[in-house]
Amino acid sequence: MDLNADLGEAFGIWPMGDDASLIDIVTSANVACGYHAGDASTMRRVCALAARRGVSVGAQVGYRDLAGFGRRFIDVAPEELTNDVLYQIAALDGIARAEGTRVRYVKPHGALYNAIVTHEAQAAAVVAAVRAVDPALPVYGLPGSAWLRQAADAGLQPVAEAFADRAYRSDGTLVSRRLPHAVLHDPDVIAARVLRMVVEGTIEADDSTIIEVAPQSICVHGDTPEAVAIARAVRQALVAAGVTIRAHT
Amino acid sequence: MDLNADLGEAFGIWPMGDDASLIDIVTSANVACGYHAGDASTMRRVCALAARRGVSVGAQVGYRDLAGFGRRFIDVAPEELTNDVLYQIAALDGIARAEGTRVRYVKPHGALYNAIVTHEAQAAAVVAAVRAVDPALPVYGLPGSAWLRQAADAGLQPVAEAFADRAYRSDGTLVSRRLPHAVLHDPDVIAARVLRMVVEGTIEADDSTIIEVAPQSICVHGDTPEAVAIARAVRQALVAAGVTIRAHT
Amino acid sequence: MDLNADLGEAFGIWPMGDDASLIDIVTSANVACGYHAGDASTMRRVCALAARRGVSVGAQVGYRDLAGFGRRFIDVAPEELTNDVLYQIAALDGIARAEGTRVRYVKPHGALYNAIVTHEAQAAAVVAAVRAVDPALPVYGLPGSAWLRQAADAGLQPVAEAFADRAYRSDGTLVSRRLPHAVLHDPDVIAARVLRMVVEGTIEADDSTIIEVAPQSICVHGDTPEAVAIARAVRQALVAAGVTIRAHT
Amino acid sequence: MDLNADLGEAFGIWPMGDDASLIDIVTSANVACGYHAGDASTMRRVCALAARRGVSVGAQVGYRDLAGFGRRFIDVAPEELTNDVLYQIAALDGIARAEGTRVRYVKPHGALYNAIVTHEAQAAAVVAAVRAVDPALPVYGLPGSAWLRQAADAGLQPVAEAFADRAYRSDGTLVSRRLPHAVLHDPDVIAARVLRMVVEGTIEADDSTIIEVAPQSICVHGDTPEAVAIARAVRQALVAAGVTIRAHT
Repeated sequence: MDLNADLGEAFGIWPMGDDASLIDIVTSANVACGYHAGDASTMRRVCALAARRGVSVGAQVGYRDLAGFGRRFIDVAPEELTNDVLYQIAALDGIARAEGTRVRYVKPHGALYNAIVTHEAQAAAVVAAVRAVDPALPVYGLPGSAWLRQAADAGLQPVAEAFADRAYRSDGTLVSRRLPHAVLHDPDVIAARVLRMVVEGTIEADDSTIIEVAPQSICVHGDTPEAVAIARAVRQALVAAGVTIRAHT
Repeated sequence: MDLNADLGEAFGIWPMGDDASLIDIVTSANVACGYHAGDASTMRRVCALAARRGVSVGAQVGYRDLAGFGRRFIDVAPEELTNDVLYQIAALDGIARAEGTRVRYVKPHGALYNAIVTHEAQAAAVVAAVRAVDPALPVYGLPGSAWLRQAADAGLQPVAEAFADRAYRSDGTLVSRRLPHAVLHDPDVIAARVLRMVVEGTIEADDSTIIEVAPQSICVHGDTPEAVAIARAVRQALVAAGVTIRAHT
Repeated sequence: MDLNADLGEAFGIWPMGDDASLIDIVTSANVACGYHAGDASTMRRVCALAARRGVSVGAQVGYRDLAGFGRRFIDVAPEELTNDVLYQIAALDGIARAEGTRVRYVKPHGALYNAIVTHEAQAAAVVAAVRAVDPALPVYGLPGSAWLRQAADAGLQPVAEAFADRAYRSDGTLVSRRLPHAVLHDPDVIAARVLRMVVEGTIEADDSTIIEVAPQSICVHGDTPEAVAIARAVRQALVAAGVTIRAHT
Repeated sequence: MDLNADLGEAFGIWPMGDDASLIDIVTSANVACGYHAGDASTMRRVCALAARRGVSVGAQVGYRDLAGFGRRFIDVAPEELTNDVLYQIAALDGIARAEGTRVRYVKPHGALYNAIVTHEAQAAAVVAAVRAVDPALPVYGLPGSAWLRQAADAGLQPVAEAFADRAYRSDGTLVSRRLPHAVLHDPDVIAARVLRMVVEGTIEADDSTIIEVAPQSICVHGDTPEAVAIARAVRQALVAAGVTIRAHT
């Protein structure tokens, strides 16, 4: 199983998350590319880390919105969105190559991630960007999203991910972050939950129904000390259960 | 002889220069990469134009300073400058490749261009960035600059350029833009001047002494209708004199 | 009658519009405040012009989106939008005061203008910003918009504007810019149309029905030479008809 | 004695420092204004805190350089620098007024602070900005700097500050941050040192000579838990010695 997490989300002097710890836990690093977070020096530092540890580098692409961390939907025209995403992937790929690795997948971030679950035109725009770079690049996203469907239709390789610490609804979508029970916090609960997703292919939704999932990657977080501990617990639970932890790509 | 000019210096809704005219005059297009000018959509449009016309695409790299158009020296730390320049080259290269071409050379812009005539640490930083991308990439700059000297020492291929419309001092440096006679305006005078540079290898300095030059590329401007007319006159004069106009790279 | 237009929409080296001509035509200058266009030096230059000509200075507030010129809806949280708008009004007011005038009204720009025609939460956010600065500041907007309704409810002074060069639908809303007949171009037609709005209080919609309007200000454009000519024709037609041209505020 | 510290240096999602703790220690809060750090919502939050605690709000003005946190010298033209600083003060003042307080002083930040110790043209530019807002605004800076001298010559009220945790040279300037002994770390040593500055008017330089100082404000830091502890120790030492702690302005 692949474990992915957001890294390189610092900006200038402002740090974020614990990249140095996460890099030892995950197999795939979603590296911010400077549009909603990240900057050239942060990108290079994370790529160097990833290259050294054999962690796969992915382009964490987002809206051009540092002030909003890419968490606000922007109604950008599809053609411009394609070019913005292409720019981000290209910038990261060049930096990754300078460190002896390269971009191995693409994962949209924040409001863009959420928008293209249903926004067909923006989903198509991101698909076009990935195809312009390399049609062989896998793309990460939410199972059932317009994004993964369009990517598959366009010949890209979709990678469906599940979230370790998020509550699910019975239709397989995530509980909104605006609701109090959206995020889980207990490392043991979360680890057990992920193990069940991976081994049994099921997850308990917030109304207690059991739904089927088939994640190809598990997304963990690392922006707080607690989050790093959770990510570590998830990895250990999978390893202990005999699951091989390796990058999808 | 190679003719280079700055293209793609629009930003968002704000246009600059006449890219569509210039692309038919020059052989090398210095394309801004989003740090001091340019944006992903502008970059892609210019790369598409350049690819169609067989014009060589160069990375016009600069300081991170849209508000100042990269014309203000910034005392950025060398290591960060290296990463900033690497980022810019990589972003443009990826976009160029999406249009069937690629970055074929690097030319610093504005205050960075001027700084690295003498600023050894920043010159070294830009050299390091180019080497990190591709040590075979030619680099454009001012003859006698720290930048071209260090580039040559590092195994890069320096391309010395002369300016069609700028007055020179007897030591081969440019007359400061703060002086009234810094920029020439008469297309005939400029065309004759460039012809002399290219054919005789000489130029008359502002104190009337004759100095020797050996430009490998001529820089023309295109940010005004007058500038486009001058660029066209320069090209025509060279062609009429039997000089082959082709990209250096 | 008040004539308002967008001024100060340059950014750094990139010019926009003909502020020097417009300032002699309009009575109210909507000055961009640096979020979607404009910068401190442009703002000061326009405020100096406005102060000298007795033109009223208004804060043209927008989303934080230089790359998109504020023309893309951004789903910014209302509380942040309030603070962003407050920041913009305050910055312009301080600059205006340094030039002997002050901000006399507020007019949202672009996608924000359009959003708050119907987006109640964002409309409320902008109302809150204006109230935080000065509840006596008039606010410009589209007749019938959530923005003007909420402003009136909150004790602000709404100023309903009509557009000189835009086609209207029979319900009083503007024809979308995506449609070919959205914008009128003939100066004589436009001038006659504005005269009819002002004198008769009617306008012919795009389905030929006659609708009633009661504009307190007419918005003219000035971003092209043609637009300046139109603005001048509008002013001359009103003056010739005996309409007094003076700032609303 | 006045105690000042930098607050409001977050940007968007990225926090910095412990504003909530510092606000209970200092009497003057240098609030970043969005050019090198800070944003409208952060500014408003800090102004609200300051208003509630009776802490004086100062404009922490800097170069337009979020990516570099204003720590890199930028060779901005004086006239533009004046307008940039005016914009920042005005924006903060409007936000402060919305919270029932106002900007009571101006303190340049980072590379700008350092530049105008000797850069006469930039010092004059900042003086011009403050005068354009309000000639009665006190300005904080380094004793002996071109900035404070020009400010005094222009009729502004200079406030000489001393740094609690920085080593001094025998000429009264600060030891460069590039040297290992530039910053002191022991709270007791620092508190005793500040007490001596305030009570005796002397400080021991890094070559053990005793120099005279006459600070009107002491600058403490708060960007780390250790820094907050030091700031608290400084305040307690002064209070214990009977020094009245109150804002200069």
